[in-house]
Amino acid sequence: MAMTELALEKTFMLIEPGPVILVTTTDKHKNNIMTITWHMVMDFTPRIALTTGAWNHSFHTLMNTKECVIAIPTVDLAEKVVGIGTCSGKEVNKFEKFELTPLPAKSVKAPLIAECLACIECKVIDYVEPLGMVILKAERAWIDRDRKERRTFHANGDGTFVVDGETLNFRNLMEEKLPDGV
Amino acid sequence: MAMTELALEKTFMLIEPGPVILVTTTDKHKNNIMTITWHMVMDFTPRIALTTGAWNHSFHTLMNTKECVIAIPTVDLAEKVVGIGTCSGKEVNKFEKFELTPLPAKSVKAPLIAECLACIECKVIDYVEPLGMVILKAERAWIDRDRKERRTFHANGDGTFVVDGETLNFRNLMEEKLPDGV
Repeated sequence: MAMTELALEKTFMLIEPGPVILVTTTDKHKNNIMTITWHMVMDFTPRIALTTGAWNHSFHTLMNTKECVIAIPTVDLAEKVVGIGTCSGKEVNKFEKFELTPLPAKSVKAPLIAECLACIECKVIDYVEPLGMVILKAERAWIDRDRKERRTFHANGDGTFVVDGETLNFRNLMEEKLPDGV
Repeated sequence: MAMTELALEKTFMLIEPGPVILVTTTDKHKNNIMTITWHMVMDFTPRIALTTGAWNHSFHTLMNTKECVIAIPTVDLAEKVVGIGTCSGKEVNKFEKFELTPLPAKSVKAPLIAECLACIECKVIDYVEPLGMVILKAERAWIDRDRKERRTFHANGDGTFVVDGETLNFRNLMEEKLPDGV
């Protein structure tokens, strides 16, 4: 549970592989968490797009506060992440119910999640209503460098999830294409 | 190399896990392919968003023809997919160079790729220039049900890629949340 700062130019690497993510918000009275599987990197800043809308209780807080934290869970948290995605913050305190620890962020009021692999503090910079798309700009990122379990997992959309397997290295073929600092 | 039709309501499942994808276009003179790693599902139709722009040679054909095919490669094609992403259709015929087989699609002129696991025929329905985002609507999808290697792979953004590992099944916890037909 020791989050240390991650360079902002490496932050897109947390989102690009397409893992299931958690998004925390706070309205000062209560912290909340939602599970999001539809998201993408937009640039190396990074700006990040999420598909969400009024059907998520967190959406209203997200729109009002214009802040959130994206937390990246690993496979040991999978059942909690599914649970978070299938109940509403309207009825439960999800941090308590799922025994997760909110940690203070630095640039936003929404909390980090201590048990996750990494966290990205984000500001909402746009909401494109016809597309149902929230546009976030990462302000600051954190990673737990000592965490043993580092495998993220990806939603298949049918209630099954695929866990990270082996890693392939093609850096030698891609050197010209890689952004600075990654 | 036997593509059979996949129900459109299951098509979002090809994109939701966040695999590296190939996108084919054709300008009648020449088929082209680009590698895309920044994309997301927007709804169950499905509409799909891609981040791309004028730096990709295919982008101009995509804007002119308003059509493309998303092809889902598996890990046995990883080196070709990296190669496709590091050269330009301005200089080479990528189908020839990477020994891939274009197959005729049904609803669009852009070709399917026979060697891939699945293909999605798409129409461009919007380009949101300030966001650098192309919005696609899937018209028809195909899958190779007999293919042995079915593991897709995900870009980490630094020249390494993570391959699909084990699958977790939480369908019993998510039944109420799953869309019809998946």
